[in-house]
Amino acid sequence: MSKAVWIKHASQLVTLASEHRGPRTKEAMSELSIIEDGSIWLENEIIQAIGTTDELQIKYADRIDSAEIIDASGKLVTPGLVDPHTHVVYGGSREREFELRLEGATYMDIMNAGGGIHATSRMTREATEEKIFVQTEKRLDSFLAHGVTSIEGKSGYGLNLETEIKQLRVMRRLQQEHPIDIVPTFMGAHAVPSDFKGKEDQYVDLVVNEMLPRVAHDKLAKFNDVFCEVGVFTPEQSKRILEAGKTLGLTPKIHADEIESYGGAELAAEVGAISAEHLLKVSDMGIAAMAKKGVIACLLPATALYLRETAARGREMIDAGVPVAISTDCNPGSSPTTSMPLVMNLACISMRLTPAESLCAATYNAACAIEIEDKVGSLEVGKQADIVLWNVSNYQQLQYLFGVNHVNSVWKKGVKVVG
Amino acid sequence: MSKAVWIKHASQLVTLASEHRGPRTKEAMSELSIIEDGSIWLENEIIQAIGTTDELQIKYADRIDSAEIIDASGKLVTPGLVDPHTHVVYGGSREREFELRLEGATYMDIMNAGGGIHATSRMTREATEEKIFVQTEKRLDSFLAHGVTSIEGKSGYGLNLETEIKQLRVMRRLQQEHPIDIVPTFMGAHAVPSDFKGKEDQYVDLVVNEMLPRVAHDKLAKFNDVFCEVGVFTPEQSKRILEAGKTLGLTPKIHADEIESYGGAELAAEVGAISAEHLLKVSDMGIAAMAKKGVIACLLPATALYLRETAARGREMIDAGVPVAISTDCNPGSSPTTSMPLVMNLACISMRLTPAESLCAATYNAACAIEIEDKVGSLEVGKQADIVLWNVSNYQQLQYLFGVNHVNSVWKKGVKVVG
Ligand SMILES: [Zn+2]
Ligand SMILES: [Zn+2]
Repeated sequence: MSKAVWIKHASQLVTLASEHRGPRTKEAMSELSIIEDGSIWLENEIIQAIGTTDELQIKYADRIDSAEIIDASGKLVTPGLVDPHTHVVYGGSREREFELRLEGATYMDIMNAGGGIHATSRMTREATEEKIFVQTEKRLDSFLAHGVTSIEGKSGYGLNLETEIKQLRVMRRLQQEHPIDIVPTFMGAHAVPSDFKGKEDQYVDLVVNEMLPRVAHDKLAKFNDVFCEVGVFTPEQSKRILEAGKTLGLTPKIHADEIESYGGAELAAEVGAISAEHLLKVSDMGIAAMAKKGVIACLLPATALYLRETAARGREMIDAGVPVAISTDCNPGSSPTTSMPLVMNLACISMRLTPAESLCAATYNAACAIEIEDKVGSLEVGKQADIVLWNVSNYQQLQYLFGVNHVNSVWKKGVKVVG
Repeated sequence: MSKAVWIKHASQLVTLASEHRGPRTKEAMSELSIIEDGSIWLENEIIQAIGTTDELQIKYADRIDSAEIIDASGKLVTPGLVDPHTHVVYGGSREREFELRLEGATYMDIMNAGGGIHATSRMTREATEEKIFVQTEKRLDSFLAHGVTSIEGKSGYGLNLETEIKQLRVMRRLQQEHPIDIVPTFMGAHAVPSDFKGKEDQYVDLVVNEMLPRVAHDKLAKFNDVFCEVGVFTPEQSKRILEAGKTLGLTPKIHADEIESYGGAELAAEVGAISAEHLLKVSDMGIAAMAKKGVIACLLPATALYLRETAARGREMIDAGVPVAISTDCNPGSSPTTSMPLVMNLACISMRLTPAESLCAATYNAACAIEIEDKVGSLEVGKQADIVLWNVSNYQQLQYLFGVNHVNSVWKKGVKVVG
């Protein structure tokens, strides 16, 4: 049993507490429920009490001597950040490809040098489960150092049964051995493997008939995701995969409208997906459909930056009533970063979210996007004690002083894991 | 006297050493002079020896027992980063203005709420020298934590003699009391103060006749900078200020062609400026003039990001033979960041510099832009022992794994100041 922790005198304790349950939209995304001179009592992995420092001083008068006391004067306290979309489990590294591109290499040069998603697929297939575990563990340490206490992780670099299962097994082991909570998503339909080129429907058969039943049987994933994009999987193929997952108890997610407007957002609404991802080229009809069905838009502004694309229309989506979450998209090809603080900054700079909306998108709404909002994403009595103490005095500075990791300390289930 | 430090087994020791002196152009920007299994001996504030671990093992065989030994296995070592363009000395904070803009406030709303450069000017005038010192010291700590060991600092929020001097005096004191080396630039012509609106020439008179002579007399600055921009100072006014500084021994710098193409780069070449800054809208003729005269382009991609502008044509400038440096532009209005690592990442992502060029632009060429390349900017025997140890194994990863501060430890003049 760990010692009780009393964090007191926070200049702002941003709780994001609310009576309302479920993804937040419009004005509700700005309701941060801030306590000034805020105070929080952590014990037995959960939040036991929240209030002003004076209130908790009285409530715990006879127990203060036995608690670890953290003076958060002049500092901000928020819930642990949640990253609802990562491809963090993979083998190898592709920095040389990044350099080759900048040195003027063509697409064919990169392919000949062993680059692209198929390079990661090859390296993920070749690496042992242990090696992938060790590599991923380091990336999770970096997430934690950036204030992230829960993430989603996708398979999708195996593109065959054995390696997809290997990626998901690594996540299961990380969930047991690493402080971060990792929520697994099966994404066998992340790309068409080389040997199925021109035979996409046969690969969909494999996903539907072999991979999904095995994943469901072994309880290796909670969500089922697909890359619906021109030249990858069509809306029809995507629908087949997502519906097959639903019958097996896997909730749909969908990589939608990233490169071209392709009806991905509309499909997400149609199949009842919890979230649609990317959405750089989403249509107005797609936005309306998502708003109507309450599909969460999971937006990835670091990916847009890295690919030199215009960021998604986050401001418009919120104004249209879509619940918005944000994420790193951490992956070796289009977003090799673990910094949710930078993603929050970019949500403001590139997508015109307000500082408050950006924080909601990285905590409560992000938790909703992976269905863990009952446990995390806001600071409320009874919830998991996942807390970040920041070296800034208000939530506006967290977004304004950009490009800097302002984390001071992180508690996961009431235990200090950073700082 | 501090203990000798021996850093050994660096997977890459990037020295940037070269026979050639002065700003680097074209291919010379990519010559990193890397030593694998690299090793470096620091003592009495300077670099005593550089080589492979085996070489230094032999050279210092009888002294190793008395040194502090740092095992850099699997890690990258580089010179301390240099930030050649900051407005880091100022009073107040403007995060509420950032939020108001994102909440839809108009320009007039912001002005009524006390925003903009004139807000910083007011807060800088009102704050005591001590208060500005303390605020700035914290910002320098953040620079240091991001691997920056030398910076330039500009006055220019005073816009009157007294406050300009106050800013420069803060820098002088920081140079004495903070580990970071801070090189001072006078920038009385940073903006036209409200009470000189429509009487710009009278303000130029004040700068030329009162401020510059006083700054030179008190030896408070090394450089003289001006904001040459439509609606601020004309090329003619800028030239008058820069020439006046030259007669007093102050080397010209110029904020050029940021918002409109205005002949700033051409002026920089004409007056023999050491560098021209921003250059988002520089003309082709301006680039050619800079290349011909060897004027360093000091590019600020974090500012472009924050202002949602297209970054400067860094790739084209290098190809045209302009020596390129990069900088945070750290300031409360258009770039409130202290992260040179992010700036290096953005130089690659937004300006298409290669990882090698980006590192040269943040070290050796940056040092040239503030004329401290004889002391810092590369790792060579006899130079100041300003060193960064990074948690990545090669310089490509430093740029590729973006948005993360990979600093492990920093030594300033041979003394560990971070890590
Ligand atoms: Zn993705
Ligand atoms: Zn500037």
